Amino acid sequence: MSKVIANMSMSLDGFIADPADGIDRLFGWMGSGDVEVPTAVEWATFRMSPASAEYMRTSMESVGALITGRHLFDITQGWGGTHPLGVPIVVVTHREAPADWPHTETFTFTGGVEEAVEAATKAAGDKDVVVASAKIAQQCLDAGLLDAVHIDLVPVLLGSGVRWFENLGKSPVQFGDPTVIEGNGVTHLAYEVTKRA
Amino acid sequence: MSKVIANMSMSLDGFIADPADGIDRLFGWMGSGDVEVPTAVEWATFRMSPASAEYMRTSMESVGALITGRHLFDITQGWGGTHPLGVPIVVVTHREAPADWPHTETFTFTGGVEEAVEAATKAAGDKDVVVASAKIAQQCLDAGLLDAVHIDLVPVLLGSGVRWFENLGKSPVQFGDPTVIEGNGVTHLAYEVTKRA
Repeated sequence: MSKVIANMSMSLDGFIADPADGIDRLFGWMGSGDVEVPTAVEWATFRMSPASAEYMRTSMESVGALITGRHLFDITQGWGGTHPLGVPIVVVTHREAPADWPHTETFTFTGGVEEAVEAATKAAGDKDVVVASAKIAQQCLDAGLLDAVHIDLVPVLLGSGVRWFENLGKSPVQFGDPTVIEGNGVTHLAYEVTKRA
Repeated sequence: MSKVIANMSMSLDGFIADPADGIDRLFGWMGSGDVEVPTAVEWATFRMSPASAEYMRTSMESVGALITGRHLFDITQGWGGTHPLGVPIVVVTHREAPADWPHTETFTFTGGVEEAVEAATKAAGDKDVVVASAKIAQQCLDAGLLDAVHIDLVPVLLGSGVRWFENLGKSPVQFGDPTVIEGNGVTHLAYEVTKRA
């Protein structure tokens, strides 16, 4: 059964980026080990601890589509047309899709989270949909569309930045106890939603 | 070697109390199992999962003094004179100590965190000092007085409330990977500070 999963690297004080959108301190675990984890693109190969590598490989195999925001799409320039996960991408945006964007087979642009989840679920088949955007994850939570939250918890207090769970409209949201995988510079915590507000 | 440890139960979105100072959803794990953990007072006996009970017993044995804020002291009415941990208590406050407070042997009232840590460390001997206050933990972090942060991470998004790490003056603060203990309704994460800003 396909699940909709929000996944981010987060600091102990709840930030998923620093005030300048920087993520260096939160993504160090992706290069903190010796085990190579290739991706769908040549420019991104991770080198992780054995535990994180196993976790990442399993996660990558189970993902069938990715939902992201326009902001991330823009700052990564659409990952050059191929996301490291190598799956169809749904970009939530209120603006027009880039006029000259050629990768129309793998990229879909939609205006709302409901449509995005619908499109991504269809594209994912029996695999999972991953939501890689703080804002969209919040909207999915509020809309009752999220099944799980996977936190890559990084042992740092950033003090300021962009919070993952900043503007929840409906709370509390209750989860079960997590599956825990201990990496190097990260603790992977996989929570499933058990009760919505 | 005595350590200064901040310890709180925290939601996934970083809150240690709801907007009305409520902690019910964050302290459920203390009654979520069958293993009795007695404390120094009759009115507080925990019933925890085996893992949390073992963690709690070990923690309680290693604590030699507790630092708290005046707010918690006031709303608990000074725990009736004996804190469940049964250790000397240092209350950080800018107000006078209560005039009729009889428990002067176990309670100390000080005006600043440096003095509080000094007094608590002296009282703790070779045991650890626990800081049980969000605000004082922040001040200790900023003053470089904290050795470790023990997070009892509760699988809930509260959406609003009192944040543990709200006003850090000096950041980032880097920790090592945590010791992880998986309880019932909680994940105990013990982090040691490795690098201060």
